Amino acid sequence: MTADYFHFLNIIGVAFFAISGTLLGHDKDIGGFGVVVVGTVTALGGGTLRDVLLNQPVFWIAQPDYLYATYAAIFVAVIFIRYMPDVSNYYMLLVDAIGMAIFNVVGIEKALIEGTTMIVAITMGMTTGIFGGLMRDVICREVPLVMRDELYSTACFCGGLAYAALFLLGVPYLWCIFGSLFITVFLRLGALHWGWQPNIFRKRTIRK
Amino acid sequence: MTADYFHFLNIIGVAFFAISGTLLGHDKDIGGFGVVVVGTVTALGGGTLRDVLLNQPVFWIAQPDYLYATYAAIFVAVIFIRYMPDVSNYYMLLVDAIGMAIFNVVGIEKALIEGTTMIVAITMGMTTGIFGGLMRDVICREVPLVMRDELYSTACFCGGLAYAALFLLGVPYLWCIFGSLFITVFLRLGALHWGWQPNIFRKRTIRK
Amino acid sequence: MTADYFHFLNIIGVAFFAISGTLLGHDKDIGGFGVVVVGTVTALGGGTLRDVLLNQPVFWIAQPDYLYATYAAIFVAVIFIRYMPDVSNYYMLLVDAIGMAIFNVVGIEKALIEGTTMIVAITMGMTTGIFGGLMRDVICREVPLVMRDELYSTACFCGGLAYAALFLLGVPYLWCIFGSLFITVFLRLGALHWGWQPNIFRKRTIRK
Repeated sequence: MTADYFHFLNIIGVAFFAISGTLLGHDKDIGGFGVVVVGTVTALGGGTLRDVLLNQPVFWIAQPDYLYATYAAIFVAVIFIRYMPDVSNYYMLLVDAIGMAIFNVVGIEKALIEGTTMIVAITMGMTTGIFGGLMRDVICREVPLVMRDELYSTACFCGGLAYAALFLLGVPYLWCIFGSLFITVFLRLGALHWGWQPNIFRKRTIRK
Repeated sequence: MTADYFHFLNIIGVAFFAISGTLLGHDKDIGGFGVVVVGTVTALGGGTLRDVLLNQPVFWIAQPDYLYATYAAIFVAVIFIRYMPDVSNYYMLLVDAIGMAIFNVVGIEKALIEGTTMIVAITMGMTTGIFGGLMRDVICREVPLVMRDELYSTACFCGGLAYAALFLLGVPYLWCIFGSLFITVFLRLGALHWGWQPNIFRKRTIRK
Repeated sequence: MTADYFHFLNIIGVAFFAISGTLLGHDKDIGGFGVVVVGTVTALGGGTLRDVLLNQPVFWIAQPDYLYATYAAIFVAVIFIRYMPDVSNYYMLLVDAIGMAIFNVVGIEKALIEGTTMIVAITMGMTTGIFGGLMRDVICREVPLVMRDELYSTACFCGGLAYAALFLLGVPYLWCIFGSLFITVFLRLGALHWGWQPNIFRKRTIRK
């Protein structure tokens, strides 16, 4: 992935997560800058953890563009909600799904660039994709999306597997990215629409 | 800011936050070292995150003075509460407000010394000021102060703006610091006393 | 401690914490990869924070063995629970106690190797031992073990003191480790069995 694609994808992911944090913050009826804090933590949390773990300069300190994108996305989301106050929680989940898919790919890419093995890279992708939303849910005292029944971390993991498979098959970077994004978003939105639930790890409660 | 002022302010901020964590821990009726853990996390959390983000040595590892100050403040607070068991939650909020104002300034200063732009510095100040108290509230399963109605992150942000304004006007360092501290503490305590609430970002629920 | 002992202890600690996270995740009836996420965060959280604070390469990125151990332990725990669905919460607390004791010692050792003072090392041991379990409890929305009545952080702290005392007496490394492990596990399991509670820091609610 060239630096330009990386930058572009990262900006989009940051903006989507900033919007998801703002939507949940509004839903909780915080007044004032609390909404900005929640939006910012959601947008920057995952990528910040990734950079700290990889011992790289934190992306939004090295390039304040990301900070401008975060604040701009929060501002737009706030204006938007003011005039459409009955926006449902569904939009938050939608925006979060796309942000997660993007951050998953970005995390995998950045880890591979730093020379980690594929298993570390997939773990780093899940960290980047999940951590921001997890902090958002913890601060807002919601049940974290990771803990709910629909495919969430499963979708993230399958997107990582798809990336690894395409990468090992020698497919060009851009198609690895699109493949991974497609799988993650497809599984997550499918789970939201049709209620797909993974039961692989669940306790067997009925045994006869 | 000379290193001495910086050190002094940081020690005071650490002590105030340690006391706030101890007070909330006591309020939750934890026995044993849980109180010390909560106090320590509150005192060191924000500054630790700041140093990790700026890729600096973590302040309490580089200079164990901060650790001594934390433990001493927790010890004094524990003794104090033993003989004044009906200390109200108001003192916790008061101590937290002063700690937040100090850490806000310290975070901005440290970021500027590392050569970040002003918008990154203000974000870093808010991170330093808010994160310790946020972890305290999450561990104690309280609604985070950031999520409540009174001015909190708004006060922190206005303190940051005041610092930036005075700094750009060429006012001496010491007055930038005092100005920022005054604005933050004034707004926060005013909000606690007179119930000021920011409504700028709130949903318009009634539209006729 | 030679690098081999360090590695071995760390692997064991990681596996125990991974199991404890998996058990709590199952107890919360998460389906799918949420269980893997909780197990991974619990296993790697404390050590990751330790490495970031000490400005060392993060252990599971530098040596993916730890990641394999984590996933293997989660896999075994999942299989185990499938065929013993009525596993009680007691096993989670048992596994957590042993993991905490090991991570406490490992954290102290690693801090001392980096040349910190003893008070920083004990604080780092408690950080390593407690943080992973704390994140597990926060994500699962349980009351953190640190906040409950039985000896938990107190046991961790006493294990740290035991290590420091044996170390200063010039006892060989291996015995420092065993002594610390024994004290921590003994106090923690004793508290679980016989309900020991520390009252040193508790409020005096009745004063006549």
